[in-house]
Amino acid sequence: MAPNGPVGLAVVSNRGPVSFRYDRAGGLVARRAGGGMVAALGPGVRRHGALWLSAAISDADRDAALAGVVEAEGYRVRWLLIDAAEYRMYYDVIANGSLWFLHHGLWDLPRRPRFDRRWWEAWEAYRAVNRRFAAVVADVVDDGATVLVHDYHLALVCGELAALRPDLRTTAFVHTPFCTPEEIGILPRDVGTSILAGLASAGACGFHAVRWATAFQACCEDRLGRPANTFVSPAAPDRADLARVAGSTACAAELRWLDQTVGDRRLIVRVDRIELSKNLLRGFHAFDDLLEARPALRGEVVFAAFVYPSREGLAEYLAYRQEVESTVRRINQKWATATWTPIILDTSDNHPRSVAALRRYDVLLVNPVRDGLNLVAKEGPLLNERNGVLALSPWAGAWDELGRNAIEVHPFDVADASDALASALDMPAAERAERAIALKDAASRRRPTEWFDDLLAAARPPGW
Amino acid sequence: MAPNGPVGLAVVSNRGPVSFRYDRAGGLVARRAGGGMVAALGPGVRRHGALWLSAAISDADRDAALAGVVEAEGYRVRWLLIDAAEYRMYYDVIANGSLWFLHHGLWDLPRRPRFDRRWWEAWEAYRAVNRRFAAVVADVVDDGATVLVHDYHLALVCGELAALRPDLRTTAFVHTPFCTPEEIGILPRDVGTSILAGLASAGACGFHAVRWATAFQACCEDRLGRPANTFVSPAAPDRADLARVAGSTACAAELRWLDQTVGDRRLIVRVDRIELSKNLLRGFHAFDDLLEARPALRGEVVFAAFVYPSREGLAEYLAYRQEVESTVRRINQKWATATWTPIILDTSDNHPRSVAALRRYDVLLVNPVRDGLNLVAKEGPLLNERNGVLALSPWAGAWDELGRNAIEVHPFDVADASDALASALDMPAAERAERAIALKDAASRRRPTEWFDDLLAAARPPGW
Repeated sequence: MAPNGPVGLAVVSNRGPVSFRYDRAGGLVARRAGGGMVAALGPGVRRHGALWLSAAISDADRDAALAGVVEAEGYRVRWLLIDAAEYRMYYDVIANGSLWFLHHGLWDLPRRPRFDRRWWEAWEAYRAVNRRFAAVVADVVDDGATVLVHDYHLALVCGELAALRPDLRTTAFVHTPFCTPEEIGILPRDVGTSILAGLASAGACGFHAVRWATAFQACCEDRLGRPANTFVSPAAPDRADLARVAGSTACAAELRWLDQTVGDRRLIVRVDRIELSKNLLRGFHAFDDLLEARPALRGEVVFAAFVYPSREGLAEYLAYRQEVESTVRRINQKWATATWTPIILDTSDNHPRSVAALRRYDVLLVNPVRDGLNLVAKEGPLLNERNGVLALSPWAGAWDELGRNAIEVHPFDVADASDALASALDMPAAERAERAIALKDAASRRRPTEWFDDLLAAARPPGW
Repeated sequence: MAPNGPVGLAVVSNRGPVSFRYDRAGGLVARRAGGGMVAALGPGVRRHGALWLSAAISDADRDAALAGVVEAEGYRVRWLLIDAAEYRMYYDVIANGSLWFLHHGLWDLPRRPRFDRRWWEAWEAYRAVNRRFAAVVADVVDDGATVLVHDYHLALVCGELAALRPDLRTTAFVHTPFCTPEEIGILPRDVGTSILAGLASAGACGFHAVRWATAFQACCEDRLGRPANTFVSPAAPDRADLARVAGSTACAAELRWLDQTVGDRRLIVRVDRIELSKNLLRGFHAFDDLLEARPALRGEVVFAAFVYPSREGLAEYLAYRQEVESTVRRINQKWATATWTPIILDTSDNHPRSVAALRRYDVLLVNPVRDGLNLVAKEGPLLNERNGVLALSPWAGAWDELGRNAIEVHPFDVADASDALASALDMPAAERAERAIALKDAASRRRPTEWFDDLLAAARPPGW
């Protein structure tokens, strides 16, 4: 199928900006897809009229692709059809089940990973899907076009493109952290080398923070014997979109609900996927310690966790969710009174409610064990209306922009995290205000379109 | 208590060369302590008549210390009395439960470590015990004496000594791997810095392999802003002692038992502590895959694992042992016949039997996820009488000396490990013989006393 008009600029990512569902009559209905990457890319893509290539994930997506939908929600789109079994191997086993764990340091190494025959079959699927993405890109973009490839799902695409279409200007942007040279050795040797070579074949490889670019360079020098062309450009929140949601009647209703629920108490908030790297468990343990160490806070503070289920096709995520739920249950049983529930665990994925919580927090806890950037750490200060304190892990890429005015939370030290929450709650009003202004300033310094322009400016032919 | 004679040379380690038990009449009986460190240090200590300072671990040890025993099994000894509760915090919580996990990369980071108030109390115990060791050393050694401090239990001793007795010449030898700069950041910041500063205060810090010295240097430069004085000297097996055990009647009896049990079948052997870093589980999974992939081997090969319980005071080790036992049970249920048990799991800690197995193997599997050196990889080729093949993980420090003539086993890739076992079993006799000779040569190139002499030669005053 020919693309809809000339394609001088294409964005390639596993998940696209739009997903489909069936209405009651069986018709296809488009809706904006969630996720941080779409939020970050959307404004730039729309402004430039770029073509967005992504995988058709649901049955409705496939039907839309087969029906020839080429435009939806203001985006020019093109879908790849991938066999469902192949998609599971590429996406669940390799991308999310292996590369995500690798880059975030999440493996329990005495037990996982275990690269068995089934895993090797999945790796072949990953290679095939990456080749297919590259072939479609090569097929549809104009001479000398710019192609912006995204994330760990598609680490081999730029390598394929360098062979198929050396005329293209490319970037490979990695949204996750990047592992160390020691860690990449956990992968089978050829696999690690393929991934590095694939990324390094891009005209430039982008990262949200200097440390991930440095780690990637160290891997390339160690394994490929040469540096890659890298750049660093942290993504920015979409303020217009945040303002739209914050100003909605749905958000106002959620804020009223929150006001009623929390009352005069102080409010600690977290907003995350239920994700192993986000460190939910130690956040709750730190709060438990805080109530132990500071009896005066009992009954006076609520920890509201807006955490929504994610990747439940992976056993690790199901197990983690159960641990989260039982940890919260245990702490609530320990401390709750007739009029006070210490932890509110909300897994409903209610976006207006999360935005209301970000407007309302006294302390925002962002304590990942490792995180490429963490957009919530930027969105919180932009939305917050109470001079709330940001309690931030230095292992989040966003630390580089926000750390100066955040309270540091050590992700593994729950005694330290408890003390950090106490300092945040104790902070004098003047200091809270001063830091809140500085955080708002840091978080609004860049717009999504500037980030997108960095990607465009970095794009180069391979081997440039 | 004054030491027995002048002390120009002292060795300091948590575990000493001798432990005590009570006989039936309640009398104290000395016996040589097990463990690789004693085997490596023993010959040098005896030759130089060094004083050996260590912790009194059992009640019998304490009684011996109180009774003033200063000489046992040919060693001049001195014990530190440590309160049992304090010892558990220092030894179980910090040394084995934290520093061992750190340096071997064994943490399941979404869950562990969790530095809570109890952990901080344990860290204070660790500091106190280290200070106590340093105070006793400072008290008993002569002016300008040489002090050789060992391992992760005593990482702060050389720092204390540098302040108390700057006249001493010291080395801190680290027998484990050493973590990367990223990994040391998992510890609370002050704790990581204390450990690095403590080690770097030694006249010289020694390691079994270049990569661990490099990692330590990277940590020091990153955290302390300066390099440390390091040296690399891999420990060597005690050939005289191995020959003594191999020549014993007990070993001959065990060899007969093994011959009867294995018969004409080929024999894969492993000898290890039941230890998370040793990668027992993936070794069994690789064997399972081998039987799946190579039907002709069914009934024709036995995997004998001589693995003895260790650190059962830590929940992680109890859980790991159960996983090992259930994995073996499952694989045996899957493949066993009336006349063939595929895996023999022997947890009896029978040293003559382990030596017999090393004499008898066709393939020795040493596949750790990370290992400072691994003495078994050297002992095997020295003892083996069948031109057995060494299947070795490159993540063991011993790889540097033995890798050229071993078959490489990727510790996380069970498909690769299965293929490696197959190649080892398939190897033509001439190649086996050639490699066996080269391995024996590499493993016998150095003696324990030469290793000890390296430590002596490296010892310097602090800040040298």
